[in-house]
Amino acid sequence: MASDTRERMLETTARLLQHRGYYGTSLNDILDASGAPRGSLYFHFPGGKDQLVIEATRATVEVATSELERALDTADTPGQGVRRYAEAAASLMCDSDFTFGCPVAPVILDATGDVSELAELCRQALDDWTVAIRRALGAAGIDAARADGLALMAIAAIEGALLIARARRNESALRQVGEELERLIDAALPDAGRRAPPGHRRKRR
Amino acid sequence: MASDTRERMLETTARLLQHRGYYGTSLNDILDASGAPRGSLYFHFPGGKDQLVIEATRATVEVATSELERALDTADTPGQGVRRYAEAAASLMCDSDFTFGCPVAPVILDATGDVSELAELCRQALDDWTVAIRRALGAAGIDAARADGLALMAIAAIEGALLIARARRNESALRQVGEELERLIDAALPDAGRRAPPGHRRKRR
Repeated sequence: MASDTRERMLETTARLLQHRGYYGTSLNDILDASGAPRGSLYFHFPGGKDQLVIEATRATVEVATSELERALDTADTPGQGVRRYAEAAASLMCDSDFTFGCPVAPVILDATGDVSELAELCRQALDDWTVAIRRALGAAGIDAARADGLALMAIAAIEGALLIARARRNESALRQVGEELERLIDAALPDAGRRAPPGHRRKRR
Repeated sequence: MASDTRERMLETTARLLQHRGYYGTSLNDILDASGAPRGSLYFHFPGGKDQLVIEATRATVEVATSELERALDTADTPGQGVRRYAEAAASLMCDSDFTFGCPVAPVILDATGDVSELAELCRQALDDWTVAIRRALGAAGIDAARADGLALMAIAAIEGALLIARARRNESALRQVGEELERLIDAALPDAGRRAPPGHRRKRR
């Protein structure tokens, strides 16, 4: 069973990474913010900062992937699922005073290709999220080529909206992009022309 | 007239910021990569790292804004202009071995709200790019509310595609998002249904 100290260090690392990036998060910052004794660092993470960053990022990515899949699985349409996911991110951003963000974006932009396991984890996360959306689009009857382009657009636009919301210290970009994506994706559904307007849809899956 | 050393330090700073972010770019990195003598740093930039970062970011943002405006001004349709801008970014990314990127994204994600002038500059850059696209959409006859949502989507999706391309070390995401945005934007043009297919369009502006 993982110790409380270990868990606390991972959570703190994930939070600091989202807020300040890879190079902006020092071991001292992590120790200070988690209140963990210095000796516990190499006891729990013999691989040092990179091990801590990799484990923290992997855990946060898993949460994000589950949330996205849940949003898609419980929605009436894939567009609605994507919009709800963007709205949940908007709420988290507000609640965190705009320190919340994508778990992989700040790590990717900090040239962490030097740590190849971390680079691979971030690349894989973006791919997994795209695949989750593509699969939901396919299940709703959108053909493979179209689903490919729309899924990439959805992940790209949400990543960009997270950035814009952070820069503005205002989450409206996430909500607006969520609405645009819902419109774009649901217009590509095979029965788009015949469907009832939002709020009057039947359960599709 | 600005000295060569000064210009070289600004260019180096801009390049390192795009590649490694704010915290990943130290004054030593800038001096090493620019080959500038240490004494020249405070001579040219008495405000130190923050002055250097602010001036370098401002200059790179101005180039990006001009490129975007030129792409929009010289295109047959606003969608084509946005696609060409995304394609130009894809080429720059290849040519730079995937170190090129948005001049403001890594700075925003590094929690540079501590340096308020820098935070304001980044926020303004994202707004300026959105306004440039919104204006082109308006000039092509798209109504204000629709132009608003589409312009935000375009900037968000390009930002996200820059991130995905960097993570994959493959620029195809930028090209694919460019094509999706062209399709999305040009479908919103008032004469969308009557226009000739791509390659057979008349000059619109």
